[in-house]
Amino acid sequence: MDKVIFDTDPGVDDALALYYLLRHPGIGLIGVTTVFGNAPVAVTTRNARFLLREWGADVPVHAGAAGPITPDMPPEFFPAHIHGENGLGDHPIDMPVTEVADEAAQYLVDTIRAHPGQIRILAVGRMTNLARALQIDPGIAGLVRDVVLMGGAFREPGNITPAAEANIWGDPLAADIVFGAAWPVVAVPLDLTTRTFLDRRQLDRLARDGGPGMRLVADLSQGYVRFYQGVGYDGMLVHDATAAVYLTDPDLFTTVAGQVRVLSDGIAMGLTLMNPADRQGPAGAWEGRPAQQATLDGDPQAILDRIARICTG
Amino acid sequence: MDKVIFDTDPGVDDALALYYLLRHPGIGLIGVTTVFGNAPVAVTTRNARFLLREWGADVPVHAGAAGPITPDMPPEFFPAHIHGENGLGDHPIDMPVTEVADEAAQYLVDTIRAHPGQIRILAVGRMTNLARALQIDPGIAGLVRDVVLMGGAFREPGNITPAAEANIWGDPLAADIVFGAAWPVVAVPLDLTTRTFLDRRQLDRLARDGGPGMRLVADLSQGYVRFYQGVGYDGMLVHDATAAVYLTDPDLFTTVAGQVRVLSDGIAMGLTLMNPADRQGPAGAWEGRPAQQATLDGDPQAILDRIARICTG
Repeated sequence: MDKVIFDTDPGVDDALALYYLLRHPGIGLIGVTTVFGNAPVAVTTRNARFLLREWGADVPVHAGAAGPITPDMPPEFFPAHIHGENGLGDHPIDMPVTEVADEAAQYLVDTIRAHPGQIRILAVGRMTNLARALQIDPGIAGLVRDVVLMGGAFREPGNITPAAEANIWGDPLAADIVFGAAWPVVAVPLDLTTRTFLDRRQLDRLARDGGPGMRLVADLSQGYVRFYQGVGYDGMLVHDATAAVYLTDPDLFTTVAGQVRVLSDGIAMGLTLMNPADRQGPAGAWEGRPAQQATLDGDPQAILDRIARICTG
Repeated sequence: MDKVIFDTDPGVDDALALYYLLRHPGIGLIGVTTVFGNAPVAVTTRNARFLLREWGADVPVHAGAAGPITPDMPPEFFPAHIHGENGLGDHPIDMPVTEVADEAAQYLVDTIRAHPGQIRILAVGRMTNLARALQIDPGIAGLVRDVVLMGGAFREPGNITPAAEANIWGDPLAADIVFGAAWPVVAVPLDLTTRTFLDRRQLDRLARDGGPGMRLVADLSQGYVRFYQGVGYDGMLVHDATAAVYLTDPDLFTTVAGQVRVLSDGIAMGLTLMNPADRQGPAGAWEGRPAQQATLDGDPQAILDRIARICTG
């Protein structure tokens, strides 16, 4: 079983991804780290603990960064209109939000050092915890099996601005550090996740067939679906769960390799830009960076089918 | 006949575009403006005059900008390895380079004002002359029929850096001004022009069938072809002539509409970024900009056939 650490900011589509990880027989979820993003970190940490309790999973949760490492960022903005005031679609949560210590980066370092070459990281929020772990101990990059992240927009426009996808936009310097480290990174960007669309009928079927665990996902997704209905979809994009499927079924994805930079200021702050490995010509500020991968294409229907099978099987 | 002003920095592929404009029965070329880029402006001006003399064309040439309006630019770099030391592939030119006055911007203003609603501008170099004309007289934007420009890289990587295409990179602030003005702009970017590839055999055939005028184009293109051979092509990309074909045959192109910003500093300086008209979500620094167009696709073979027919017919 793959040893996976899930770095997350639940967040509605984070919840589906977490449920997928817990249900998948090939995944050994050894830890959850939390980060600000869809809600403040104290809230996302409470939400991760709540979900794990509801699903009867004994997995340690380590709270992480409360804000970005990128300098001169605009004030935090938490998307309550998408993920609800409580980060889980305003589904009732019988667990209080408490103060949390910032320990995720050190936990990542310690755990990677304890299992050299084995850890897979699935990161679906701001990349702050990962970047801070690299700052604490740059040597961990060579000890991680891979980093799969939901984030970026390479050939398609962004969602938070025309340039930027929200996870990257929320801490662009952190993302630039993560893409620049000598560990294998696979980004699962909007180019693909805006096509992994779970329609309302499919979601209802999952809730019906999947038992109480999946019903909880469906219940807390209702506000998220309403947000997507407001922008023309009848259902929801499952960004984070798509990245989770990459861990288990990489053959459903088409990747492009290249050096990646992230713009950490200016009007296009948060833009992910690749210098494809087959491109000729001057490399500019991409020079010397490791080649990483991005899943610019894939089979959305097969990915959705895989999620359905695992979450109801 | 369409009244066209050709803003250019000859430049080898500029020469083919100019020849196309002169030969096309639907184009009335009323003026040429020159700009720094493929060579210093005194050289590109001499080259434009030389080409027009060789082809017996009585078209006035107005020299323009010697450098960018973008602040804090790196020092000029003239690509002699692509366009030759003399800007025309080191083909012998029996005309001296002389000092030139910078009069193109004012010429653009005066000519647009003299022919309201009629002028089409084809711009295939840095956008400096056009931006300076707008600075002199912003009212001209509403009086131009359209601006077709060769430049940018929207979904594909750049050529001068992974982010930027050379014409835009050379004066990104000027390009941002041009895309932001209330005139209809159609960008013909690398997304398409890296596929309008004239192979050596086609070029030889054009030289054989096209008479002395086309033979001159082929002769001065030999160094340019050698550059492309060095990067894996057996022939040449006809960036500027592709943009010229848009003037006469827009139905061979597929355009996408949206607001465009150009990054004028940082590691991605010169990047063209579109907020597509059908995108939902916050518009950020694209807010309020006019919708322009970019030809992200088209029929490369049909475009090359059109060039061949006009230049040999």
